[in-house]
Amino acid sequence: MRTLTVDLGERSYPIFIGEQVLGNPDNLLPYIRGRQVCVVTNETIAPLYLEQLTSSLPGLQVDVVVLPDGESFKTLATLNLIFTTLLEQRHNRTTTLIALGGGVVGDMTGFAAASYQRGVDFIQIPTTLLSQVDSSVGGKTGVNHALGKNMIGAFHQPNAVLIDTQVLSSLPRRELAAGFAEVVKYGLISDLPFFYWLEANVERIMACEPAALAYAVERSCQNKADVVAQDEREGGVRAILNLGHTFGHAIETAQGYGNWLHGEAVATGMLMALDLSCREGWLPAEDLARTERLLLKASLPVKAPKGMAVEAFLDLMAVDKKVLDGELRLVLVTEMGKALVTTSFSMSNLWETLAAF
Amino acid sequence: MRTLTVDLGERSYPIFIGEQVLGNPDNLLPYIRGRQVCVVTNETIAPLYLEQLTSSLPGLQVDVVVLPDGESFKTLATLNLIFTTLLEQRHNRTTTLIALGGGVVGDMTGFAAASYQRGVDFIQIPTTLLSQVDSSVGGKTGVNHALGKNMIGAFHQPNAVLIDTQVLSSLPRRELAAGFAEVVKYGLISDLPFFYWLEANVERIMACEPAALAYAVERSCQNKADVVAQDEREGGVRAILNLGHTFGHAIETAQGYGNWLHGEAVATGMLMALDLSCREGWLPAEDLARTERLLLKASLPVKAPKGMAVEAFLDLMAVDKKVLDGELRLVLVTEMGKALVTTSFSMSNLWETLAAF
Repeated sequence: MRTLTVDLGERSYPIFIGEQVLGNPDNLLPYIRGRQVCVVTNETIAPLYLEQLTSSLPGLQVDVVVLPDGESFKTLATLNLIFTTLLEQRHNRTTTLIALGGGVVGDMTGFAAASYQRGVDFIQIPTTLLSQVDSSVGGKTGVNHALGKNMIGAFHQPNAVLIDTQVLSSLPRRELAAGFAEVVKYGLISDLPFFYWLEANVERIMACEPAALAYAVERSCQNKADVVAQDEREGGVRAILNLGHTFGHAIETAQGYGNWLHGEAVATGMLMALDLSCREGWLPAEDLARTERLLLKASLPVKAPKGMAVEAFLDLMAVDKKVLDGELRLVLVTEMGKALVTTSFSMSNLWETLAAF
Repeated sequence: MRTLTVDLGERSYPIFIGEQVLGNPDNLLPYIRGRQVCVVTNETIAPLYLEQLTSSLPGLQVDVVVLPDGESFKTLATLNLIFTTLLEQRHNRTTTLIALGGGVVGDMTGFAAASYQRGVDFIQIPTTLLSQVDSSVGGKTGVNHALGKNMIGAFHQPNAVLIDTQVLSSLPRRELAAGFAEVVKYGLISDLPFFYWLEANVERIMACEPAALAYAVERSCQNKADVVAQDEREGGVRAILNLGHTFGHAIETAQGYGNWLHGEAVATGMLMALDLSCREGWLPAEDLARTERLLLKASLPVKAPKGMAVEAFLDLMAVDKKVLDGELRLVLVTEMGKALVTTSFSMSNLWETLAAF
C-alpha cells in the first residue's frame, strides 16, 4: 500500500492506494472522530463491497443510505434522502459520512457532509477509476441543476481517501476507459513523462493489470494533489484540471446527463482543447494526433455527438462555471505537459474547432 | 449612521446601522465585486423596499427572486428557485446575492450564495428586528428539513450587513416583539448593563422610537460580533448565543414551523433555561421573575404551548444540533450577564422545568 498526502495545512489528509485497502480498519478508524458513521453508496456497489466495509467498522453506530445509480440522480432531491436518514438516525455533529461508490456518490456524500448541520466529517472510498484519479481528491463536492452540471456545491475536504485498486476489476470496460481519459489529462497538463508512460502502458491498464493500475492511479493522484495544494478553491492554477471540461460539459448537457459518461465527454473535450491549441499556434498537429491515438486505444470517443451544432456548443459553454463576467475562459495546452487558463484565443479558431468536431 | 466591524481576519465585514441606510449606493457598491447582482426577497417585502434597493444599483445587471413569505418555505425546494434564476440569467462566480428580508430570506440567500458554483458573495439587508440583531450577523446560513430546523446549511460570511432601522416601522408589533426576545438574550448572556437599559427602555423600543431602536440594534450586533469573532464556526463559546434555542426549537417543531414565531419560542425557551439555572442553584428566582416581567412587557409568550408534554420536549430536544454523542447540551445562565454551555445538569431538574412550563 502507498500513501500520498494532500498538503492543505490543517485540512491535509492521506490518500491510501493499493490492494485490500477497503477492508482494513486501520485505514478508517483513525479518521473517524465520533461514534456514528453513515455509509452512502448505490444499488450497484452495495451488493459488491458494502459488507466488506461495514465489517471493518466495529463498535460504531453504522447506518447506510443506498441511492439509485446514475448521474440523473445527482440532485438536491436525492441529497435530501441522505439528510433524512441522518436525522432519523439522530446523527450529530461528530458523525462521519463515508462515500462508497463513484463520482456521483462521492460528490453527493461530500456535499451532504459539507451542509449537514453546517459541516461534518467525511471519507472517500472511490470505486471507479474516474473517481479514484479525479473527484475523490481535492474537496469539490456538489449536485447538478437541470440547467447546469455541478452548479450547486461546496469545497469540503475529506478526512481520508481510500483507493482500493482491486475493485476496478469489477468495473465495466467502458467506465474504465472513461477514467483513463482523466488519467491522460494529467499527462497533458502537467506530466509529459507520464504521458509517454501511458502511451507505452495503455494496454496493461485496460487489461486491469494491478501494477500498471496502481501506478497510473498513484501518479494521477500525486499530480492532482500537487495542483490542489497550490490552489484549494480554484482561484487560479487549479482551473487547469478542467482541461476539456468546458467542451465536455456542453456535450453532457446536450445529451442529457448519463448518456455520455463524464470521462467520455472529457476525452472528446480534451481533443477539442488540443485542436484549438494547435490552431492558436502553440501545439504541432502531431501532438493532437498522438493524443487521439492514445484515447482511441482505450476505445474513447474522439468526435462530438452527431447533430450537435456549433451554436449549441457556444450556448451551453456560456453557462459553464469557467465563464467570468461574460468572458469564456478555456484551458489550453501550450506545450505537451503544460496548460494554462486563458480568455485570449480567436473566436474564429474556436468556431473552426467546434465545426471540425 | 454607525458602523461596526465583525472581526474575522480576511473575512471581516462592516455592519452599517441607521436611518436611510437602505437606499444609499455608498453602502452597497464598494461590496459588489462583479457586474451581476441577484436580489432575493419575499412577497411581503418586495412592494415596500425593492424599488428603493434596485434604484441604488446603477449600471449593474440586477435580477430579482421573489419568494413566498414564511418559514414553511425555508426548504431545499425553495432554494432551488434561486439557483434556477441565477442559471437562467447566467450569473457567474463573480455575482453578488443580496438578501432583502427577514431571517428566512437571509438564511436561504446566504446558503444559496454559499453553494452556488461552490460559493459567491452576498450582502445582508435584514428587514425585521429579529434578523437585524441576530441572523444577519455571523454567517450562519441554511434551510430546514422536515425533521429539524436549520439542519442543512453552511457557514458563509456576508460582504456587508446593511441595517436600516426605519424599515422596522412597517413591522407588525408581534414580529417586533419576537426580535426583542433576541435583544434581551444579549443582556442575559453577556451584557448585564444592557439588560438594565432594556428594562428601562422596553416601552420606547416597542413604540419604535428611532433612537432607542438604533441603540438596541447596535448594542445587540456588537455583542454578537464579539462572540462570533471569538468562535466563528461554533466550536465553543459561540454556542452561548443559543440560549433558549434548544427548548425553543422543540416548541417550533412541535407546533409546525411558523405558528410560533422563532423569537416567541426563544422567549419561552430562555425562561425555561433560566428556570433550570435557578433549579441548579446558580440563579436566584428573582432573576427569572424580572426577565419574565421584561418579556411580558413586549407581550411575549412565557409558557410552552398547551398540551405539549414533557416527553415530547425531550424527544424533540434530542434531535437538536446541540446534542453531541447523545449528550444533551444546554446553555444555562450562571449569573445575570454570563452564560455557559454544559451537559452537567440534573435530569430531574430538567424534568421539573419542562413540567413547570
